[in-house]
This record gives sequence, structure tokens and C-alpha cells, in this order.
Amino acid sequence: MIKKLLVANRGEIAVRIIRACKELGIEAVAVYSEADRESLHVQLADEAYCIGPTASKDSYLNFTNIMSVATLTGCDAIHPGYGFLAENADFAELCRECNITFVGPSPEAINKMGTKDVARETMRDAGVPVVPGSKGIIETPEDGVSLANDMGYPVIIKATAGGGGKGIRVAKSEEELIKGISITQQEAATAFGNPGVYIEKYIEDFRHVEIQVLADSFGNTIHLGERDCSIQRRLQKLIEESPSPALDADMREKMGTAAVKAAEAVNYTGAGTVEFIYDYREKKFYFMEMNTRIQVEHPVTEMVTGIDLIKEQIKVANGEKLSYKQEDVTFSGWAIECRINAENPEKNFMPSAGKINMYLAPGGYGVRIDSAVYPGYSIPPFYDSMIAKLIVHADTREEAIAKMKRALSEFAVEGISTTIPFHLKLLNHEKFVSGEFNTKFLELHDVMNS
Amino acid sequence: MIKKLLVANRGEIAVRIIRACKELGIEAVAVYSEADRESLHVQLADEAYCIGPTASKDSYLNFTNIMSVATLTGCDAIHPGYGFLAENADFAELCRECNITFVGPSPEAINKMGTKDVARETMRDAGVPVVPGSKGIIETPEDGVSLANDMGYPVIIKATAGGGGKGIRVAKSEEELIKGISITQQEAATAFGNPGVYIEKYIEDFRHVEIQVLADSFGNTIHLGERDCSIQRRLQKLIEESPSPALDADMREKMGTAAVKAAEAVNYTGAGTVEFIYDYREKKFYFMEMNTRIQVEHPVTEMVTGIDLIKEQIKVANGEKLSYKQEDVTFSGWAIECRINAENPEKNFMPSAGKINMYLAPGGYGVRIDSAVYPGYSIPPFYDSMIAKLIVHADTREEAIAKMKRALSEFAVEGISTTIPFHLKLLNHEKFVSGEFNTKFLELHDVMNS
Repeated sequence: MIKKLLVANRGEIAVRIIRACKELGIEAVAVYSEADRESLHVQLADEAYCIGPTASKDSYLNFTNIMSVATLTGCDAIHPGYGFLAENADFAELCRECNITFVGPSPEAINKMGTKDVARETMRDAGVPVVPGSKGIIETPEDGVSLANDMGYPVIIKATAGGGGKGIRVAKSEEELIKGISITQQEAATAFGNPGVYIEKYIEDFRHVEIQVLADSFGNTIHLGERDCSIQRRLQKLIEESPSPALDADMREKMGTAAVKAAEAVNYTGAGTVEFIYDYREKKFYFMEMNTRIQVEHPVTEMVTGIDLIKEQIKVANGEKLSYKQEDVTFSGWAIECRINAENPEKNFMPSAGKINMYLAPGGYGVRIDSAVYPGYSIPPFYDSMIAKLIVHADTREEAIAKMKRALSEFAVEGISTTIPFHLKLLNHEKFVSGEFNTKFLELHDVMNS
Repeated sequence: MIKKLLVANRGEIAVRIIRACKELGIEAVAVYSEADRESLHVQLADEAYCIGPTASKDSYLNFTNIMSVATLTGCDAIHPGYGFLAENADFAELCRECNITFVGPSPEAINKMGTKDVARETMRDAGVPVVPGSKGIIETPEDGVSLANDMGYPVIIKATAGGGGKGIRVAKSEEELIKGISITQQEAATAFGNPGVYIEKYIEDFRHVEIQVLADSFGNTIHLGERDCSIQRRLQKLIEESPSPALDADMREKMGTAAVKAAEAVNYTGAGTVEFIYDYREKKFYFMEMNTRIQVEHPVTEMVTGIDLIKEQIKVANGEKLSYKQEDVTFSGWAIECRINAENPEKNFMPSAGKINMYLAPGGYGVRIDSAVYPGYSIPPFYDSMIAKLIVHADTREEAIAKMKRALSEFAVEGISTTIPFHLKLLNHEKFVSGEFNTKFLELHDVMNS
């Protein structure tokens, strides 16, 4: 049984994990960088140790120092949270070697899902829908044309060795495709030393819908429904909700089943998220990627299912069976989460570090706050800008929106700029209220001037 | 439809009502005494007006000033909260005369339940169990002896005109009874000018268990289960929970049915609470009184039923039907509320008014805060000492206790003394944890030195 757990993270997720430990009767050990001496997670933990200088690579990513604290303090488990070491297979492997329980999946599962090509092929083999496209590399432009004619335009040309938005080109016609393949091959040869390209159907308008899964080491895998995270700014999620306004029960069932298949295909254990591209016009969904860790937006799933995901993670890592069977999972009401960031939405979301002079979070029925800040706290400019997650739960989406607006309107933060005014504008935007939007919402709508 | 509502109260319940109004799209008007200029309810309301000096009788009990604000600002409803005017039939009557909706039951229902003798007789007639005793006044000691022999000792002798703990005497034997009746009659004649006494069975060890009811003006009355409020200090509730550790499903059903009968007997409308003496040894319950208003501890019922009681109050007052039928009401998990008071539990709970220098409420999954304080707020010494209600919700009582301890331990309040250390001690007390206690718990156990 896990008795003492090291939390290898900072901020609200470190606080979240420490809280779960306290409620489970597990001692929690915090670690912190020099910039984080005054952090709340340091104050709430049973013990806390500095693991290095401010830079993440020297502290929160520092294998040696973290493992030293874990072994010297007698921890029998490490929870990585999200970000930092959460999807680092080498660290999970190191934990295994040191005989310390890593609260997460196996290094093998992390690796398989972390390598995009391997993940795509594994999913295809497991019968999880992937975006239609070529199997492997396109040899000649003619091969591409033949495939594109089958799939229909537009298609997307991707360099196999590309990444980070480079080596990608959209083609809307045969002409563009033939030209595009040649250019992308040449570019890829120059840029990556590998001219290989493949093509995929280009899904222009989609919603980001993801499925939460939970699996134990006895072969039980369940899903806890979906989260809709289509409201994004530069691929950063800003608002998440569960259920999705775009899914019906049938689609939820199909997507949930596919997510369970995806997890089973890599012998997944613990909590994970299978992200899908949801083509709502065609009512089809495609595997995007799997996050092999807890996610920022996990609370909305907790609110609608009543299942504590962090506690389940710890129990599963402890070798226990899942507390729930698929048929035990029920969904109740509607939950929305707003990520409150220390950023100025009037100035293109410029980060706004500094001292919080006044802080009063909203309260009352159906309102949850996950945060690591307090009055007088100085936000260090070195890490993530999120200062709080504000989560509401109500019977319907309409009521949840009303509750969120009420909660945001009473959220008092002084001394820094926050995204609270942005969220208030967004929640009043008729397009958001209608529930009919896709991942381009914030590109298409100037919310701050609406 | 109610468009604008005056909140005739202060503190956390005023904030609670303002929040419900905002979520329902109703404008909220706050009123405040001179001492409450800086109060949170004043800041959160759409409009706020001073209604008089610090003393409650000049402000929060000032009919004329409150009604003036209501009419001048065009309010169509008044919510009285709890305390102050909440159970004042004359004020409810005045609202009726002014054609302003009083969010509460009729003046007639308030009157019937507010007069103890009338309530007892009304309940008896309606078939709601009352404590066994004499019908009306005992003429001779012999009448008392004959009745006491039927009921068994101990019995309690009460002066009909008594009250506030005066004119009450317990008798454990025939000898004590005969003597006690004479003495109490003489005392009552002297003290109240009325020698009439009656006797009741004395229930020494009982739990305080109350049932939440909701009724609309179409004759629909439902109950939302029980709250156990046995943890009291000098008749002040300190911790409340739902469900009660002492009730099984059968007893819950019986008590719920009796509470519905009680409400129906006075044509009750809105939210109300029927309080019972629960004799857990004999598995019998008796009507204690009915609170014809919302109660401090209403959140624990909201947490286990998912029903927003303030919104239901407002909807019913608005002439709508109840949103729920009895069969729609389901109970999920366990909720506990701790009343955090500005009192020093080390010094016999002496009130501790003053400035709150630091304030950070706990957060996270399953934690709810209903409060009206903020960092920098000065607690005026003139009113109630409660500064926050901390409510938790979890699957089981054990988990709820663990969560409450976790939440209390991170609750940071500086500048004043609070009852947080008392609650922490209490939640660690094995007798509390066992669930086996009665209303004498705090008399019998020195919690602070345990």
C-alpha cells in the first residue's frame, strides 16, 4: 500500500494531488524550484524539498534530484501530474528500476502513444478510426491523386519527418495536390533530410472531443464520457465542458468504445485521455492522440460522473482494481471549466506575472475552485500562466453558463491582469451559447470586441 | 414573473440569495445597516441601500425602511433569509398588503407554527407524533401521577406560560412528580401570573433530526430527506450532516411522510424544516417544531439531492409548480457542514470580532464554501459570529470526514480566532467518527482537550 507519495509538479495540479493524498491518508511530499519557495503546494504538503534552480530543466525535469528526494524521504510512489515528467517514458522506467510506483501507465504505453506514427498504426490495427490517408509514403504524385480522388478534396500533405507545423500543405484540387506533393517532397528533403510525404483527408471544421478512460492492471478498462475542448486559442484550451453539446448518446457510446479499444491496444493502466477530431458534419470521429496522464480539464468529468480521478489513479497504481465498472458510470448534469490565466486579454493575452494583492474566489452551490494562488502571492514569470480553474456544475448547459457568469463576475483578483473578462465576454457570445462552434471559434470571432 | 428581489438580510445568506438571483436572471437589491457598508452582499448586489443604524431593530428589523426600499426600487419580491424577519408573520402580512411577493409561507402558516401550543395541537390532530403528555393542563397532582404511570418516568413538568428554560422541572419518580407539580404551579403563578402546568414524557437522550420539505401553491408537498444536527453547543448547531448516521431507509420514509403531513396541515408553501426529537433507543420520533424558512444548514441537503433550495423557494413564490415530484428526489453520497464562527474555542467560544488580515478558503473537488467575508474585511461585533459555512460532499461518511479534515486543515484565516481548531478536534473524536452520539455530545465530551 502506498504510504508516502512524492508530487513531482507545482501549481494547482500539485495542490490537487496533495489534497487527494490527505483524503486517502497518504503522506504527501512536495518538491519545488527556487522560484517556488512560497508556493501553496509547498505549504500544504507534509514535507517539501527544493530540487533546484528556477529553470524547469534544473528542477521539475531533474530526474536525479527528484529521485533523490523520493528515496531519501522514503516515498513509495511518485505522481507526475501533467506536463514536466508526466509523459516521459524514461522517467517512468527509472521509477520502475528504483522500485518506486509511478502513478501512470507503463513506459511502453507512454512510448507507443508518444510516437505519432506508431500511435496511428497501432490505432488503425486496433480498429480505432484514424483520419483516412495513405498507408506509409506516397511514391509518385499519381499515387496521391488516385487516393485523393477516392477520399475527396481537400487533403493535407504531411512530411513524415515534419512536425511543429512545418512540412504541411493543404491541397484543394488535383492541380494543387500534384504541385504540393513535389514542393513538400523537395522542402522535406532540404529541411529534414527525408523527402517522404503522406497524405490525409483534411478535416477543416471539427470539434475537439476527448474521452476520459480509466484502466487497472487486471484488464479492466472503462470510459467516463467526453469533454468538449473546442474553445482553443493557438491550440491552448481555454474552456472545457462535459458533456459535449455536439454529441448524442449514440455517438458518445461509439466514441467511448473506441477510446477503450485505444487504451486496451497499448495495455494502458491508470487515467488517460483519447483525443478525437470530431467531424460533426459527417458525424465521424478520428483518433488525434492519446494523453497518457491526467489532464488539466479532468474536473469537468469528475463533476458529471462523481468519480475522483486522482484517487482512482493512485488506487490503480497501488495495484487495486477499478472502483467502478462501465455500467456503474452515470452522467449527471453539465460541467464547464474556465482556465483563469494571468494574461491580459486586452493585450493579445500577454502574460501578466506579479503580485496578487487581493484574491477572493467565488463560492456557493455548484462552484469548484482548483488553484494554487493566495492573497499576497507573487506569480513567478517562469512557468505556466494558469492561476486557477473555475469549474461549475448544474443541471443543464444553460444553467451552467448562468452559474459560470455569476461566479466569474464575483471572482476578485487584483494586482495582475487575468482572463476573467475574456471568459465573461465569451460566455455571453451567442455562438458559444448556441453550442454550435468548432475549433476555429476564436479565429473567427473577436470575442473581446463583441 | 419576479424581476427584482430585495434581500432583507446580511452575511452569507444574503450572498447565497443574491447568487441564486443572478443565476435566475433576477435583479438583486441589497439592504444594509450602517455597520455593514463594507459587506460582501452590498458589493455583489445589483443595487444596495442603507436602511438604518447598526442595531438590528433599526435596520434589518425595520419594516418601514425595508418596505420603502422595496417599493421605491420597484422590487416585486422580498426574500427574508433566516433570522431577522424570516418568521415574522406581520412582515409577511405587510408584504401581502403591499402586493410584494414574500418568499416564504403565508402569514397564517408562520403563525400556526410559531405558537408552540397551537403547533403541538395542530400536529396531534394531523397525526404527526408529538411527545406523549397531558392534553392541556393538569388539575391535580393525582392526574399527573396517573398519566406518568401510564407513560413511565422520567417526565417533564412545564408551565404553559413558561419559556426560555423557565418553569420547567424534570421528575424521575412519583414523589418528585407530586412535589414538582406543586412547586412549578406556585412558581408559575408568581413568575407568569398563570399557574397552569402540563406534563410530557421526558426524552433524555435523543438526536436532533430534521426533515427538509418543499411545497408549492398547487398542493404539492415533498420532502428532501433528513439532516442530523445533534452536534450542538447550548442549542446552537455546529455541525450538520445528511443523511443521518442514525436513520435507516424505513425510518427516513416514516419521518419524511410525517414532515409532509405536518406541512400540509398548515397549507405550507415554499421551503421549510420539520424538526424532530429522535429517540434512537426506542426508534420513535416526535415533532419538536417547524422552522418556516430556509435554514443555515440547507446546503447539506442540496449536496445530497442536487436540488437548489433557494431557487426552488423563489420559483414557488413566483407561482410556479415544484420542479420535482417525490419520486424524482434521489439521495447521493454524504454531506457535512461545519459552521466556522469567529469565536475562540480555547476561551469558551468567546466571540472574536476584528479584521481578517488573511483569508484563503479551501477548494478542490467536493468542497463548497458559503461565506460573506474577504481578506481585509472587519467583522462587526453586532451580529451573528458565523463567518463561513464549509460544506463537503463525498461518497461515504468516512470519505466526507476525511475531506472535511483536509479542507479545514488548509482553511487560512488570520487576524481573528475561529472555530476551525474545534472542528478539527471534533472530526478526530472517535465518538463523532463512530456516528453514535446524541445532543448531549458536547456536554459529555471536552472536545478541545481530547
